[in-house]
Amino acid sequence: MTVTDRLNVSSERLESDLQTLAGIVDPSKLGNTRTAFGEFYRDGAQWVAERMADAGMRVSFDLAGNVVGSLEGRHEGAALVSGSHIDTVESGGRYDGIVGVLGAIEAVRAMRDAGIKLERPLNVIAFFGEEASPYGVAHIGSRALGGSLTAELLLRTDSSGETLADGLRTRAGIDPEKILKARWSPHLMAAYVELHIEQGAVLEQKGKKLGLVTGIAGARRFTASLTGQPDHAGATPMDRRHDALCGASRLVLSVEEFAASTPTGVATVGVLEVGPGASNIVPGFAKLVGDIRSLDAEWIDARAAQIESALRDIGLERSLDVAIAWPSNTPPTEFVGVVPSTIGKVLTSSGHEYVPITSGAGHDAQEMALLGPAGMIFVPSQDGRSHCPEEHTDLSDIALGVQALAESLIALDKTDTL
Amino acid sequence: MTVTDRLNVSSERLESDLQTLAGIVDPSKLGNTRTAFGEFYRDGAQWVAERMADAGMRVSFDLAGNVVGSLEGRHEGAALVSGSHIDTVESGGRYDGIVGVLGAIEAVRAMRDAGIKLERPLNVIAFFGEEASPYGVAHIGSRALGGSLTAELLLRTDSSGETLADGLRTRAGIDPEKILKARWSPHLMAAYVELHIEQGAVLEQKGKKLGLVTGIAGARRFTASLTGQPDHAGATPMDRRHDALCGASRLVLSVEEFAASTPTGVATVGVLEVGPGASNIVPGFAKLVGDIRSLDAEWIDARAAQIESALRDIGLERSLDVAIAWPSNTPPTEFVGVVPSTIGKVLTSSGHEYVPITSGAGHDAQEMALLGPAGMIFVPSQDGRSHCPEEHTDLSDIALGVQALAESLIALDKTDTL
Repeated sequence: MTVTDRLNVSSERLESDLQTLAGIVDPSKLGNTRTAFGEFYRDGAQWVAERMADAGMRVSFDLAGNVVGSLEGRHEGAALVSGSHIDTVESGGRYDGIVGVLGAIEAVRAMRDAGIKLERPLNVIAFFGEEASPYGVAHIGSRALGGSLTAELLLRTDSSGETLADGLRTRAGIDPEKILKARWSPHLMAAYVELHIEQGAVLEQKGKKLGLVTGIAGARRFTASLTGQPDHAGATPMDRRHDALCGASRLVLSVEEFAASTPTGVATVGVLEVGPGASNIVPGFAKLVGDIRSLDAEWIDARAAQIESALRDIGLERSLDVAIAWPSNTPPTEFVGVVPSTIGKVLTSSGHEYVPITSGAGHDAQEMALLGPAGMIFVPSQDGRSHCPEEHTDLSDIALGVQALAESLIALDKTDTL
Repeated sequence: MTVTDRLNVSSERLESDLQTLAGIVDPSKLGNTRTAFGEFYRDGAQWVAERMADAGMRVSFDLAGNVVGSLEGRHEGAALVSGSHIDTVESGGRYDGIVGVLGAIEAVRAMRDAGIKLERPLNVIAFFGEEASPYGVAHIGSRALGGSLTAELLLRTDSSGETLADGLRTRAGIDPEKILKARWSPHLMAAYVELHIEQGAVLEQKGKKLGLVTGIAGARRFTASLTGQPDHAGATPMDRRHDALCGASRLVLSVEEFAASTPTGVATVGVLEVGPGASNIVPGFAKLVGDIRSLDAEWIDARAAQIESALRDIGLERSLDVAIAWPSNTPPTEFVGVVPSTIGKVLTSSGHEYVPITSGAGHDAQEMALLGPAGMIFVPSQDGRSHCPEEHTDLSDIALGVQALAESLIALDKTDTL
């Protein structure tokens, strides 16, 4: 009998925790709304802190607003780390993020129940503000630990002009002058493992319950604007128009086509605003926001060049003033080495079928990967739906993911090469 | 010396009136904002009423909120009518509508100065609410007189659910129970002539200062919706998406192509709203509002059928739920018979070059045409711009238009066949 044979992940405890946390949301909104800067986040974080304490961890809120549960090991030294986030998008789902936090807490409880004490310290972290914030900055808590949160990012503003720094202070109780000091020294972290829902449908299509994540796609965001002339829709002949919406529509379809014709990434226009916005006025202005994502940085470069060139051509053809900006560019993250290989060995030896998978969505793991070896485990998302109330993962799949997480942490604990 | 030789339209008075009325607008908005349901409209209407009184007219506000200036003729009977509107779109121009109202008042002053007294009564009207209102109903005041304002239209709602009836009562001081009684009996009107800016660039392109309007395009408005699936932009492969914005973009370009390939009308998508509207979510919902306009009702039918069929195809190809509605359908208006022929003769005999022109924009004249013979005179719009702060017509062109209007009214007054 191996140590992991004694592990008994409790679906009942998991289900109860998932249910309770999913209840700490804005009741006035459809789906699950517990945004990092909203009023329900603190209650959720406090409740998670209590669950960590119940599981036997020493709990603190760090300088970045992360909830950190610490378990001592037999020895001092660099810690194993597992976590994810409990903030949601507006009207999001009930599994994104919280599965990795509540799953890590359940892993700790299962180890405790099985009498397993790790050699190394273990930190379970609920990272602050993983989702895109109104300030245009995501992964705030994990960026603070990993080191990619900069003073420049703290000066990003929301649509009202409020800086992230002010938002942290007034809406989240986080001191922006101290958050940059939350950064970890790399020698504090031995390895990082995160359990998360896939948010896509690859596992479902392949009929597998577990995904071993090989990397996280880089994401380059763009905002494009087209300015024509807001003419009277009745009095302006078709050949005298400078219709910004027609130009923008052409760009939307080009973005889709550029990505669809080469299968190693995705590109999306998610926001399109049109002005003046009346049925009897030829649109004079359009603004688009979109992104390009791929594990392959060169693929992103090539699509970005295509989009710039298409926009220029549209401007010339339709006599529109065009502009494009690239406000953020997150390079791809590859998970290689000891963490994914250890997870792979654990899954194989315990008979769990899995598939290698890449993540198109960003995760806290990519920030923590800046500190040391990291990896992720995915569980299936029904119909690939996420960031919406229909988001669903079967409890049995979550429990299997938690089992895999716990076994992986135990195996990593025994790995000398960390 | 003919009577019209004595007419002396005063550019100075016109300029002063245009300047003053253009100053009665919302100072917090770009351009000219004096919307019918906004707070600056009443001041403008009151000021216009005073100008009518100064010009020697008996002035009243009718049951539809129209400002009506009445001049007695040598005989009683059906009246000549001239007018237009003084409401604007949001951030519109300073000439649309007010040229026809202030021009008709100046025509009355010029006749008075020249000692000309008409045989027939003359009514000058500033019609209430000609522009598209938040309730989806335009030409409110002239519809009320002409008879096309129905109880059903009074129940149309704005985006907050407020009915036009409530808006009239609370925002415009118009009793919705009485507005349907504002309707004129056709025997009250001998003929209607309206001076208006072109709002297009045909006159400018042809180097002419006056347009004799042969008709007003019919307008059929549509709202189309496309519902797909709001998936995670990073985690959803291109071939698994049901992107409502891509479908909507395809429709926008189809609408443009259908109209551009057949030159007898125009079609426009002026509104496009996308949801959820975040750069990292594949758009799950899109709504478009647009219209099709032509003097040819069959052309409109054919384009409407093309748009319905294109939307259906897009829905099938992309697995989107699609719907289309046609909330308003204004048939084309033809100006034929005594009014345009009299205007044409007047312009020819006084040596004013003009071109026949069709109006793509709707006007109060199309509602008043339901009561009897009607026609319109256009003056040029610089660069064809309208419904925007850049809207401009030279003062000399306006004065020429007012001269043509006054001469036409005098000639119609002498026409026995009315």
